[in-house]
Amino acid sequence: MAQRIEIVEGILNANDRLAAQNRARLEGARLFSINIMASPGAGKTSLIEQTARSLGSTLRLAVVEGDLATSLDADRAAAAGARAIQINTGGECHLDAVMLQGALDQLDLASLDILLVENVGNLVCPAAFRLGTHKSVLVASVPEGDDKPYKYPASYQGVDALVINKVDLLPYVSFDMERFRRGVAMLNPGLLTFPLSCQTGQGLEAWLEWLVTEARAVRQGI
Amino acid sequence: MAQRIEIVEGILNANDRLAAQNRARLEGARLFSINIMASPGAGKTSLIEQTARSLGSTLRLAVVEGDLATSLDADRAAAAGARAIQINTGGECHLDAVMLQGALDQLDLASLDILLVENVGNLVCPAAFRLGTHKSVLVASVPEGDDKPYKYPASYQGVDALVINKVDLLPYVSFDMERFRRGVAMLNPGLLTFPLSCQTGQGLEAWLEWLVTEARAVRQGI
Repeated sequence: MAQRIEIVEGILNANDRLAAQNRARLEGARLFSINIMASPGAGKTSLIEQTARSLGSTLRLAVVEGDLATSLDADRAAAAGARAIQINTGGECHLDAVMLQGALDQLDLASLDILLVENVGNLVCPAAFRLGTHKSVLVASVPEGDDKPYKYPASYQGVDALVINKVDLLPYVSFDMERFRRGVAMLNPGLLTFPLSCQTGQGLEAWLEWLVTEARAVRQGI
Repeated sequence: MAQRIEIVEGILNANDRLAAQNRARLEGARLFSINIMASPGAGKTSLIEQTARSLGSTLRLAVVEGDLATSLDADRAAAAGARAIQINTGGECHLDAVMLQGALDQLDLASLDILLVENVGNLVCPAAFRLGTHKSVLVASVPEGDDKPYKYPASYQGVDALVINKVDLLPYVSFDMERFRRGVAMLNPGLLTFPLSCQTGQGLEAWLEWLVTEARAVRQGI
């Protein structure tokens, strides 16, 4: 058992070292990058589609899509106008820094303004593996229920921003926004939060403004 | 690397051996058992609540709840009338056979008719770890989207039944049932499927009938 723990710690440390290398490359290219995590079906790809459609005419976006199988998400991101790279994890339940490194090798980083990395749909495993991006974003969604911060605390603890997607479904499901927000506040006080709907477009503006502001700050080396 | 693979294979084999022991205990007690898997928020706990409320007066149900943290789900199952055991996995992204073994130790198996095991909300990891239950059930839900069988194939491949929950939300989301079912049929032809809504009760009857029939068969040693 001790041996297995040592090996696992070794893997995590190697990942952190590679994540630091990724970050240095992104900083060097002044390319703002985010790691987008969520349950399957919370709307990561829809958020990326909406972002690419809205910002694609003024900013240069690339998307790295992590999936167990298929290139369905990369196809959607590309159709929305973004440069898209697909990573198939071959069954792994999360992206790691070496997978992102391989994707960065395929991109001309200096020619881009924003890099959106879509992690594997999973509320547990991705939280343990840094990729080296500037920010981590969690996408929650209303039909998942208001108990998720309580049940999947690690996913909420480590992130820099929270999107609450599918607010258009609030009238049709039992979701107590106050209970949800109390759970989030307990784990990550003052967390930047964007309630929105990728379906109706409601609330997207604040999210897009945040991205643009952050990307500008990285571009200017602030 | 070779060494790591050997260790991981060792863990999986040990899990399979323990799963076989769990199954022998369940068979010995003639206790029908299912392993319920799904994304976070697909409705596993709601399905268990509805099942306990509907069958609790005629059958003796117990529920084993697997979560990273909290006893929220066990509390809900207990409030619905079931005997409930909580397993906190301490961060592990799935249940395994040794965790179920510990839960079985706390139950008087011979006094029960149906054992419902709720796995950690995760569409990736639980599929790789047998628990020893008679059947595995996947709960999908309409707001997750119709692309999930294509993107998380392993979860759909290994199961004996599929619940499609939240069909009451079909009018409010874009979900192509034909596309979803084609994906499922490709991975698991002829899979027994129960479209239903735990919110409205629609479709629950077929699910309950299946459980009762299966439990009776196990009870009678068929």
